[in-house]
Amino acid sequence: MQGTVLYGLRDIRFEERPEPAILQPTDAILRLSATCICGSDLWSYRGLQPISGPTPMGHEYCGIVQEVGREVRNIKPGQFVIGSFATSDNTCPHCQYGYQSSCEHREWISTAQAPWLRVPLADGTLVPTPDAPSKDMIPSLLTTSDVLGTGWFAADAAHVKPGATVVVVGDGAVGLLGVLSAKQMGAERIIAMSRHEKRQKLAREFGATEIVTERGDEGVARIKERTSGIGADSVLECVGTQEAMMQAVRSTRPGGSVGYVGVPHGVELDGQELFFSHVRLHGGPAPVRRYLPKLIDLVWNGRINPGKVFDLALPLDQVAEGYRAMDERRAIKTLLWP
Amino acid sequence: MQGTVLYGLRDIRFEERPEPAILQPTDAILRLSATCICGSDLWSYRGLQPISGPTPMGHEYCGIVQEVGREVRNIKPGQFVIGSFATSDNTCPHCQYGYQSSCEHREWISTAQAPWLRVPLADGTLVPTPDAPSKDMIPSLLTTSDVLGTGWFAADAAHVKPGATVVVVGDGAVGLLGVLSAKQMGAERIIAMSRHEKRQKLAREFGATEIVTERGDEGVARIKERTSGIGADSVLECVGTQEAMMQAVRSTRPGGSVGYVGVPHGVELDGQELFFSHVRLHGGPAPVRRYLPKLIDLVWNGRINPGKVFDLALPLDQVAEGYRAMDERRAIKTLLWP
Repeated sequence: MQGTVLYGLRDIRFEERPEPAILQPTDAILRLSATCICGSDLWSYRGLQPISGPTPMGHEYCGIVQEVGREVRNIKPGQFVIGSFATSDNTCPHCQYGYQSSCEHREWISTAQAPWLRVPLADGTLVPTPDAPSKDMIPSLLTTSDVLGTGWFAADAAHVKPGATVVVVGDGAVGLLGVLSAKQMGAERIIAMSRHEKRQKLAREFGATEIVTERGDEGVARIKERTSGIGADSVLECVGTQEAMMQAVRSTRPGGSVGYVGVPHGVELDGQELFFSHVRLHGGPAPVRRYLPKLIDLVWNGRINPGKVFDLALPLDQVAEGYRAMDERRAIKTLLWP
Repeated sequence: MQGTVLYGLRDIRFEERPEPAILQPTDAILRLSATCICGSDLWSYRGLQPISGPTPMGHEYCGIVQEVGREVRNIKPGQFVIGSFATSDNTCPHCQYGYQSSCEHREWISTAQAPWLRVPLADGTLVPTPDAPSKDMIPSLLTTSDVLGTGWFAADAAHVKPGATVVVVGDGAVGLLGVLSAKQMGAERIIAMSRHEKRQKLAREFGATEIVTERGDEGVARIKERTSGIGADSVLECVGTQEAMMQAVRSTRPGGSVGYVGVPHGVELDGQELFFSHVRLHGGPAPVRRYLPKLIDLVWNGRINPGKVFDLALPLDQVAEGYRAMDERRAIKTLLWP
């Protein structure tokens, strides 16, 4: 088969790769119905995260089970399934505590921008849909694999409660689905921080009640103005830079919470500032597996339409153009059809 | 009157100071029944926190109201009262949210190692006891002003729940009362990290079920061993150094919580390590005012005896010896009788 490989700075190639096969008796092989490019893929694409050599790419996926290893009990060939970017046995103490993305047997999915994918720990990782979905529904189902699950975790980690005032830092696909998640959790005010018209529009569609275009200290000042000097109850940090993290912490009221899901790059937190801020901090790689049944259900029943974050869809063999479009911010998120 | 002033490195003097008087109509003047020395006083005593000149000391207090300003409604002369080291109006949005130590009108009490004390925002800051206490009860009541309230906040911020496995980093008075607090909140296992025999004994008396003497990476390894490699549900960080903070974060299970109350000195948190740890972080200056009614009630009804942390009691004019004893770790905490 052909798959996606990053060779170096902005050098994505779609080239011959080995066909995946069952390696462990707990594996499954999927024929992917859709895959996509993640904001976090851009860190290495832009050279901001070193790679040690040609690196296969992709960790968001959904598709049809083709084959399972001999110890797989619950997942069956023919099922349409979705899984997290982090595999999990779903039985270890961390999984039982709801943190499947810290599973004792976790592996990172990293070859999903391809037509076929091997998924380790299939029983603990994959969740089947009630039936075969229509093609229309596939983009929204695909988001539950990472981008929606991650936005949802940001809102959950930030303790979004009914009636809350919420700020979302970051207008990428995760931030936009953080807005959708906060709305689902009953937030009354959702302030999206964005200076990009198309993204502002989608944020409003997903439930944002206000837009703040300023960033950094000015952005914080604007949030304070809009909250009578108090700050927000819950802030979702969906970027991963120092500026975004400090913007989040400083926009939060004392006793409020920051949920952070942008993979931190060069972020350092000053203990004393954090201490006197009284801000609660929680984040990390989203435990998507915990949320999958609920999120699949919301999509399946037409309650949410997170697939709208895909404003570009390409055949998989045009993956390099998909990266370029996201890098140049021409696209929010690129869906790839194998 | 005479009061306590820090002049520089290990230079505590008990000297003539102005008698406090009502400055604002919301003030009260207390005649203190007891005061004490806080672990945090040692930062400046040891020269680890700069002072800009002679600095009056003390922020833990209880005593009898002598006089109130003309706008004080609820606090009356003759009442025995306790207040937090942070004053609060108890009505602003931060107070109503439970974070009185971030009150919009907060002032820091800083002259309490003296026989008389002016307390701003008396109505919002002070809580009266049901009646005049016996002298025996005063040490325990005094702890609610800061050291117990702070240990309690550490446990609360670390989300200690019934049945939880809890680790306490720091065997100072705050850490020891963190043990007591975790016990009150129903923790099943409480592992105190201490290498000091007398403190270990008190920790066990307060509810510690186990002692770990190792520190740093070795300490973390021991905690992991004792928790089947999982880590603790809740960890209380009661020191404020980089080593203690990292020991706390690394002893916590993914999805578990660190409650930190040691004033951070030189603490820097690496965003990426925190992210992948999945640890929840909350702390700051304890909102003691929120807890005062409950803690006073627990003491008043003999349910807890936190005053045991005072293993040295001196007349106030021997305050300098009180500092020396704590600095040299001869005393856990020094009570001062005016």
